Formats: sequence, C-alpha cells, structure tokens
Amino acid sequence: MSDWSDGGTTLEEMKGRLVAFNEARDWGQFHAPKDLAMCLSAEAGELLEPFLWKGPEDTVDLGRVREELADVVICALNLAGRLEIDLAAAVQDKIASNEARYPVDLARGRAVKYDVLAEESAGEG
Amino acid sequence: MSDWSDGGTTLEEMKGRLVAFNEARDWGQFHAPKDLAMCLSAEAGELLEPFLWKGPEDTVDLGRVREELADVVICALNLAGRLEIDLAAAVQDKIASNEARYPVDLARGRAVKYDVLAEESAGEG
Amino acid sequence: MSDWSDGGTTLEEMKGRLVAFNEARDWGQFHAPKDLAMCLSAEAGELLEPFLWKGPEDTVDLGRVREELADVVICALNLAGRLEIDLAAAVQDKIASNEARYPVDLARGRAVKYDVLAEESAGEG
Amino acid sequence: MSDWSDGGTTLEEMKGRLVAFNEARDWGQFHAPKDLAMCLSAEAGELLEPFLWKGPEDTVDLGRVREELADVVICALNLAGRLEIDLAAAVQDKIASNEARYPVDLARGRAVKYDVLAEESAGEG
Repeated sequence: MSDWSDGGTTLEEMKGRLVAFNEARDWGQFHAPKDLAMCLSAEAGELLEPFLWKGPEDTVDLGRVREELADVVICALNLAGRLEIDLAAAVQDKIASNEARYPVDLARGRAVKYDVLAEESAGEG
Repeated sequence: MSDWSDGGTTLEEMKGRLVAFNEARDWGQFHAPKDLAMCLSAEAGELLEPFLWKGPEDTVDLGRVREELADVVICALNLAGRLEIDLAAAVQDKIASNEARYPVDLARGRAVKYDVLAEESAGEG
Repeated sequence: MSDWSDGGTTLEEMKGRLVAFNEARDWGQFHAPKDLAMCLSAEAGELLEPFLWKGPEDTVDLGRVREELADVVICALNLAGRLEIDLAAAVQDKIASNEARYPVDLARGRAVKYDVLAEESAGEG
Repeated sequence: MSDWSDGGTTLEEMKGRLVAFNEARDWGQFHAPKDLAMCLSAEAGELLEPFLWKGPEDTVDLGRVREELADVVICALNLAGRLEIDLAAAVQDKIASNEARYPVDLARGRAVKYDVLAEESAGEG
C-alpha cells in the first residue's frame, strides 16, 4: 500500500510506476510521442467539460476535475518518459524564462502577454 | 541556484515556487479555475505543433516539445494548487482505476478502450 | 474578385478553393486525416487565447477571434474534403440527433447533459 | 424533410437552424462566447480520439469522425452567430492571407511555417 502525496512522491517514482503499467500491457508499441501528445490534448479537452457553461458562482464537479487533471498529468509523464525529458528541470527552466519575460514591476496586476510588456519596456528605454 | 530534477524535486516544491511567482505579480485575481483549465488546453494545443505533418522518421524539435510540455505542467500545478488537489494522490488513484479497467490479460498488446474490454469480459462470463 | 458570405457561398465552393490552394503547393502529401485533426485541435487551442483571463465585461479582440475561427473552419473543410464527408449533411444529422437527445420540455433553460436528461425521463416513465 | 448538402446549403441556413434550436431550449443564456470557444475546443479534443494510436494502415471509425467534426462545426456556427461573424468572409480573408504567407514557389512540397519562409525570402533579397 503506497500512498502518494505532492510532498512525498517524486516525479521519478510516478514515471517508474507508469513504465511498469505500460510494460505489463505491452503498450510501448502504441506510445509514439505524437500519439502521447494527442492523448494529452484530448484529455485537456475533457478537463474543460466540468467548467462549461458555468459562472463564477456555480458549483463545479471537483471529483471530475481531479480525475481529468490526473489523466493530463499521466499523459505528460508518459510523454516525458518516452522522450527522456526531465519534467522538473523543464518546469524550472520555464519558470526562469517566465521570470525574465514577466518582470514583477511591469507584469504586476496585469494579464498581458510578454511581447506587449517587451514593447512597453523598449518604448521607455 | 536550485537544481530541480524528477528524482529530487517534489510537486509540493514546484507548487510553492509557482505560488510565489504568481503572488509577486498579483496574478491570483486572474487565475479562476475555469481560466486555468482553458490555459492548460491552449498549451496542450501548442504541444501538438512540433508533431504536425511529421512521419515516424522525421525529426521533431525536442526543445520545443520540452518547453510546451513544461507549460502544460505549470498550468496543471496552478490549477491543482488553486483547487487544493494533491496531484500525486490524484495520479495514484487514476492509475489504480486504470489497472482495474485494463486487466493485464485482456489489455495486453491491444489499444482498445476499457468499455470494449468490459463487454468482452462480460461476454465470456 | 469573389466575395464570400454566409448567405451566398456554399461549403462546396469553399472546399474547392482549398483543394486548389493545397494542390498548388503540393500539400496533399502532408494532409493525413490524423494530422488534419491535430491541426484543427491546435487551432481550437489558439481560439481560446483571446478569451483567457477575461471576465464578462472585458473587451475581447474580435479580430483575433475571427481569424482563429477561420483557421478552425479551414481545418474542418480540409479534413472533410480528405475523407469525403459532406459537412452540411453531417451537421444536419447531428442537429437531428441533438433534437432527440435534448427534448424541448426537458432541456429548456438547463445546461444539463443528455444522459442526465435520459435518466430523468426514464425515472418518470 | 430538408436535405442539406455542401453544394446546396449555405452557412446562413445552418446558423438559422441552430438559432431556432437554441431559442426553443432557451440556451442563449449559457452561450457566452468564451464558453462556446471552450466547447469547440472540447469537441476538437474528441475528434482526436478516433485517430489515437493508429498507424497510416489502421482503420479509423469514420462515423465517429463525421460526428465529432459535425460537433466542431456546430460550435463554430454558434460562436460565429453569437459574435455576428460572417464565417465565409472570414475564411475567404484567411485564405487570402495564407496565399500571401505561403507563396507557391517557396511553399511547394514543404511543410514549413510562414515565418521561416519569410526569413528565407528576405535572405535571398
């Protein structure tokens, strides 16, 4: 009986478990990276459904959201595993890139794309 | 200089870093769960692009895949954080459910949906 | 100088123009149905972007929406053309199916999925 | 008994039928443009499913593709209707833009993005 949690489980452990799951079913033959990316996109589409037609006050089926989100993460882990991408490192690099693209003083309180911020910043220079 | 890796970084650590990133920019006001789910779906769409029009022999821009995949995972972490979903536990539960839906003896070597497997299994009974 | 409009242009005309566009570029070789479906999904992801982080009062870039929506429809026409699907007939059939799934008296004023309606209807019987 | 076909049915006719369908069910209240865009994206995700894990030789469930494609087009028509976008004109404009972005002599037989073509073309100048 393992018990996974965000504080105690590494992505490596999760990847390992999925490798075992897929090997037991001989599913590696189907898991071309292109298909894993499609699978992730299809699951992301399902994640939209519980939010559809809902206003900010409406109740959302959180159990459904939790399950669809798990499906997305499973696809991400399968794809990362297949392409030997270290997901944590990729996320760290992307956060660093976002920190540069969205400087705190320019981006604070604004939902504006980084290219617009870059133009503003150049205009001030 | 931290250095994240799938073997050494927990999802909790990643979530914490994203909370700090968003708070510094006062972005919580934009991050309604519905919008975070949409964002994830838009990023999943971008993840398809490097695979588009490619045959199994064609080279794929892996740097692009790595970056888009990181974007997807960042959205997933933001959404899980917002809704207080423990992602690792959600993934563990979904793998357990998939183990029941795709029994090794029936699913082995076949890309067939669980409802078809269930019908086969019922037919044999 | 043609001028297309929803009232005066048929889907057949649009499909024909796209066939000519693709043939002039010898792009048929890339247009496997699987890739055209992926392309549509990627464009649908781009269509989400102008709506991201927006409340009901916020202004949306309608020019961007119009362009992304056109991309989605172009993908749909390319895929339908490739698979020899008559889109108008497919839409008509789907509307007829939706009319049966969402009876006016049960579905009126409610954003509820057809399977829930079917259960309600059975419960009453 | 109407009978729709790509050669004989206009988009205006289809839009009109959908307006009647939605009005009969009083669904306009749910059809915020943001939700219609999400709905389209969710349907585009479902369109990926019949192609998942399939090689070029495998049979694809074309009835399923036809139905999911119809769902996508219905969402596109609902969104265009809501925002008073003439879809045919939008498609015509986008094709014209693509003709400029993908000149026949540069784009012929190549699945390359327009920005790459533009760089090539500038390099030659």
